[in-house]
Amino acid sequence: MQESFTSAFTHIRDGTPAMVDVSGKESNKRTAVAQVRVELGSEIIRRFENNDLQGPKGPVLQTAIIAGTMAIKKTSELIPFCHPLPIENCRFEIIPDAKGLVIRCEVTTTGKTGVEMEAMTGASVAALTVYDMCKAMNKAIRILDLHLVSKTGGKSGDYQASIP
Amino acid sequence: MQESFTSAFTHIRDGTPAMVDVSGKESNKRTAVAQVRVELGSEIIRRFENNDLQGPKGPVLQTAIIAGTMAIKKTSELIPFCHPLPIENCRFEIIPDAKGLVIRCEVTTTGKTGVEMEAMTGASVAALTVYDMCKAMNKAIRILDLHLVSKTGGKSGDYQASIP
Amino acid sequence: MQESFTSAFTHIRDGTPAMVDVSGKESNKRTAVAQVRVELGSEIIRRFENNDLQGPKGPVLQTAIIAGTMAIKKTSELIPFCHPLPIENCRFEIIPDAKGLVIRCEVTTTGKTGVEMEAMTGASVAALTVYDMCKAMNKAIRILDLHLVSKTGGKSGDYQASIP
Amino acid sequence: MQESFTSAFTHIRDGTPAMVDVSGKESNKRTAVAQVRVELGSEIIRRFENNDLQGPKGPVLQTAIIAGTMAIKKTSELIPFCHPLPIENCRFEIIPDAKGLVIRCEVTTTGKTGVEMEAMTGASVAALTVYDMCKAMNKAIRILDLHLVSKTGGKSGDYQASIP
Amino acid sequence: MQESFTSAFTHIRDGTPAMVDVSGKESNKRTAVAQVRVELGSEIIRRFENNDLQGPKGPVLQTAIIAGTMAIKKTSELIPFCHPLPIENCRFEIIPDAKGLVIRCEVTTTGKTGVEMEAMTGASVAALTVYDMCKAMNKAIRILDLHLVSKTGGKSGDYQASIP
Amino acid sequence: MQESFTSAFTHIRDGTPAMVDVSGKESNKRTAVAQVRVELGSEIIRRFENNDLQGPKGPVLQTAIIAGTMAIKKTSELIPFCHPLPIENCRFEIIPDAKGLVIRCEVTTTGKTGVEMEAMTGASVAALTVYDMCKAMNKAIRILDLHLVSKTGGKSGDYQASIP
Repeated sequence: MQESFTSAFTHIRDGTPAMVDVSGKESNKRTAVAQVRVELGSEIIRRFENNDLQGPKGPVLQTAIIAGTMAIKKTSELIPFCHPLPIENCRFEIIPDAKGLVIRCEVTTTGKTGVEMEAMTGASVAALTVYDMCKAMNKAIRILDLHLVSKTGGKSGDYQASIP
Repeated sequence: MQESFTSAFTHIRDGTPAMVDVSGKESNKRTAVAQVRVELGSEIIRRFENNDLQGPKGPVLQTAIIAGTMAIKKTSELIPFCHPLPIENCRFEIIPDAKGLVIRCEVTTTGKTGVEMEAMTGASVAALTVYDMCKAMNKAIRILDLHLVSKTGGKSGDYQASIP
Repeated sequence: MQESFTSAFTHIRDGTPAMVDVSGKESNKRTAVAQVRVELGSEIIRRFENNDLQGPKGPVLQTAIIAGTMAIKKTSELIPFCHPLPIENCRFEIIPDAKGLVIRCEVTTTGKTGVEMEAMTGASVAALTVYDMCKAMNKAIRILDLHLVSKTGGKSGDYQASIP
Repeated sequence: MQESFTSAFTHIRDGTPAMVDVSGKESNKRTAVAQVRVELGSEIIRRFENNDLQGPKGPVLQTAIIAGTMAIKKTSELIPFCHPLPIENCRFEIIPDAKGLVIRCEVTTTGKTGVEMEAMTGASVAALTVYDMCKAMNKAIRILDLHLVSKTGGKSGDYQASIP
Repeated sequence: MQESFTSAFTHIRDGTPAMVDVSGKESNKRTAVAQVRVELGSEIIRRFENNDLQGPKGPVLQTAIIAGTMAIKKTSELIPFCHPLPIENCRFEIIPDAKGLVIRCEVTTTGKTGVEMEAMTGASVAALTVYDMCKAMNKAIRILDLHLVSKTGGKSGDYQASIP
Repeated sequence: MQESFTSAFTHIRDGTPAMVDVSGKESNKRTAVAQVRVELGSEIIRRFENNDLQGPKGPVLQTAIIAGTMAIKKTSELIPFCHPLPIENCRFEIIPDAKGLVIRCEVTTTGKTGVEMEAMTGASVAALTVYDMCKAMNKAIRILDLHLVSKTGGKSGDYQASIP
């Protein structure tokens, strides 16, 4: 019996999770943009004052942008096989409409791999923070359609999401 | 001029962001369930083997569950006004169909406030990890409809999302 | 020679750093207030608009309050022998005058030891964030007189700083 | 084909990694002791002065005890399915001999599950720090025989390692 | 009504907090020195033995230096818009007098932006740790006059604090 | 009396712990390999199925590899005087025999100092996770002989452990 599991184990590196090896890649400037929609409901979206949504815990959007920025810097702690990268810039843009918000997050690095996960994580945590700041008013808030909008700078070429 | 900004500052505690004070609340058992859908595309969803999706970096779902579990424990680090809570249990359930996965995350605590944000964060980071493990195959993966399914144990009563 | 260092080592628990043992203490409600002054210079203090100081990187005080709140939750990660405590509330109050700001930070827990270090750390990181948000305008900003204002709830009795 | 992977997925909660549910357990006082040996070589062990080993980066044992203490508080961040627990006390004891050191780490909590992993992690990171502080002198340092010495307070009864 | 908040939102990127974009800057060697004073009172300052202050929890200054060093590496986690930078060196210098200590912290990096915040944070957390190690003896300890002493290596030229 | 402690303090930088200054070193590609043995007992080692050990909390080895990978990225947070380094690759290899497992961890960076501590920490946390995943079956599991196997790329030349 010993043999059978030993021979199975021989392949243990093949099936196991692992980082992508980027040690041989060139370091260059890379950007990624991710986007998410938060459906707040019309009652909440009306609470706009002083350039922000005023929720029961304070200004919603500024808190979300700060939380998103800090989460971008934590991406490689959250996503097991993400490489740590020197974040050189990030920008959030928030576009409201009658029922909710679109949060767009752009991240820039100079590194050996891209910042897609950083942009996705930043948009995600900003949206979760909007949820947290507003959930006392509406537990049915939905976070919709998180996706990568574009990326530039990788060896595999630039990427642009097709409009659905 | 001095006066005008001083009087404005008088109100600085009103408009500023702040935690909810839970120090006077009872500690009791609370649960929350959140759910998210990951649209992977039919090509990826076919890579099912050994009870998991086999991606280029390794087993996708187990990695996602581990990342989601660790993120649940980090929720109060990510969401600025979340209270730290002793996580006593969390469970992930993953339901596949022809085009993607539904990830459901349930969290339990005994504490003075609920674990909605923990469940939402766990589902979110599990979905981001699925994205990361599969993005070499398809950058157009979308993370859809993250929402709270239910919560129990709070003073404001239990909550159950209505089926859309 | 062997002997001499062995006998010295016998005392190694006496001289070494260690946490205070709180396992035998009662858990009760405790608060602490800390305060710090940030001397910004009259030019910066004039940039008051929309209930906040508008610095080159955005709203200064709200960013400082968010950073301070998140730092309070990280206190036991920063201070080697601090016990982790369930933070139940924290409040920042900011009082401006012609040359700077006073930042006051109050923290509440229900636990076996006090939250002095949490209040001190929160005030400290809020002040550092003010510095960071304004340093492009004035590198000579000084952070002055951080101290404990009061504490309640410990076995050793309440504490109130004497007015200097 | 769709069916086959769906039925496999039906069992996805069975095989996947998960925390133990402790929400129904009693909270009580628990301790655990772990121990590890660091084989430094006789040259390093002679550098004893001022109640500590003096390495090229500074006092070895005090640095190791501080790092170990901080790691104990990070255990649930490092070990995926560890529950976060309120650490109420920890103690390090270091016993030298002619060739190396034994590091013993004791942790106390009041909680719903034990602190074995905290004691094991504390001993482990203290030993790694000894390695780091001394590696410029000897890269062949070995960290030997990390194990649980004892635990008390759990439902399954106390545990005492048998002497090998 | 819809229009009015939409037009306000148009400016949402202008007023919101954001990182400085450093992606176009040159990477070069940079240093910063920060300084803080801790007023301990004459009773505590007398507890000098074995090259350190001996407090009730152990050696004060070595613990403070270790905590300060670890905090320097955490700066971009604490200060929302700080960029993560590769810390290449840090040094603490502690100068006592009859009533307290001056803590000086110097940080070096090779990067696209400066390490002022790292030096300020390191000095700050070292001072907070001194407070924590001594507060059982004197709660009235004050942390005074944290400021930047000098910086080198940035595009905007070197900086040297004027002596007050 | 004042004088005596002042002159002692004059030397405070000499005896205090400190990072090695790497700011003047060249950045080049570096690898390190560390290895540890986990003695599980023959009963546990038989639970091999689906290319992994199936423990009561789920698949042991994959969880250990993920935990080890995440710990590698946290090394400079755990070990006080470690420099933060951009991890570009890491690989785990696990070799079973009749009584336990050997875990081997290889780390690659391009940086100014080596990744010995990252490899040692990765192997260590992977072993601790194996312990955690199996401790319900056997508390007497031992973690044996953690050591550096090899390193390449440093100025001091490559290192290869001699076979004991």
